[in-house]
Amino acid sequence: MNFRYPNGSRYVDHGLSKNLKVNAAQNNSTIFSDRGMSLEDEINKSNQYYLQNDIAVIHKKPTPISIVSVDYPKRSAARIKEAYFSKASTTDYNGVYRGKYIDFDAKETKSKISIPLKNFHEHQVIHLHKCLMQGGICFVMIKFDFDQSIYLLKASDLIVFWDNQKNGGRKSIPKKDIENLGYKVNYGFNPLISYLHAVDLIIDSQ
Amino acid sequence: MNFRYPNGSRYVDHGLSKNLKVNAAQNNSTIFSDRGMSLEDEINKSNQYYLQNDIAVIHKKPTPISIVSVDYPKRSAARIKEAYFSKASTTDYNGVYRGKYIDFDAKETKSKISIPLKNFHEHQVIHLHKCLMQGGICFVMIKFDFDQSIYLLKASDLIVFWDNQKNGGRKSIPKKDIENLGYKVNYGFNPLISYLHAVDLIIDSQ
Repeated sequence: MNFRYPNGSRYVDHGLSKNLKVNAAQNNSTIFSDRGMSLEDEINKSNQYYLQNDIAVIHKKPTPISIVSVDYPKRSAARIKEAYFSKASTTDYNGVYRGKYIDFDAKETKSKISIPLKNFHEHQVIHLHKCLMQGGICFVMIKFDFDQSIYLLKASDLIVFWDNQKNGGRKSIPKKDIENLGYKVNYGFNPLISYLHAVDLIIDSQ
Repeated sequence: MNFRYPNGSRYVDHGLSKNLKVNAAQNNSTIFSDRGMSLEDEINKSNQYYLQNDIAVIHKKPTPISIVSVDYPKRSAARIKEAYFSKASTTDYNGVYRGKYIDFDAKETKSKISIPLKNFHEHQVIHLHKCLMQGGICFVMIKFDFDQSIYLLKASDLIVFWDNQKNGGRKSIPKKDIENLGYKVNYGFNPLISYLHAVDLIIDSQ
């Protein structure tokens, strides 16, 4: 089972992919056996830790689907026979932490020097902006695949680059700017990526 | 197109159902042309109003699906050929309003005297409890079909009935108790149901 959602993220079949992950980790031959996972998997795993330890309740939203036809076989579960991926109107992750509404999206790039703004979608930027206006803690998590570095960039900073692009500015956010403006997210054991440390800094600076 | 999600809520095909709604409204012959809609439709419509007017950002989460097989026809959208409804681990609605994290589920009942607790699921109650612990504003919206009355009941009150049931207490929440403990949600024009008035009362009483 190997396919991709329209946003490019990998579909994870937890039965099969476990073996693949083990192989990937072995090939990596680092002490971080979970490195090499997709950013989405890393976030999901971290969210699970935060949830189980009553630190935060943050979930990935299900992928939106338009259903065309469903079968109801006798004595079995309803089977969707025809459906299509539909466009999400929000970001992928939201939840609650320290009384605050948390909202973000996650993006990976193979580029070594910047993240192209085409990785973000207009409706996601609008959604983040609307959530900011309601007092939410909004950001994007960006992973550079080449060095496995992850940064949290505030939505307010993303919006500056986004608007600038529309006015003829550059079509990507340089890694250098992300390093300066954003928060480095470190790998650890539990949670795998401790991104709520960065969220603490944002909340405490408000 | 007429089928139901596993939670019993109606699938709405916005092409076809528009006509059905008009007919329903005509048959109703009341001045509230939108009465007779499902609670889910009423909430979605109200959320759309709140969103468009920058009052709140609250969305229904997509129905979670487990995908088994996908087709990639040339020059057309990926087509899901086999998938199943999977169990949601959270409630259906969340978002942000006045800086607060909002989380709730919506239930309808045909009963005139109470709402059976079997309408709620253990994982939903646990999720609401966990969100409460993080300082979220959590509740359920309950609609009695027979008189089209809608109430907002705080999750903390729901949890009392839920735990009581487990200790041999009654298996439903009497409408009388919902009237006393909860907040009546009134129909209006814009938004269709102004449930954020009740949320204001909860926030302001904290």
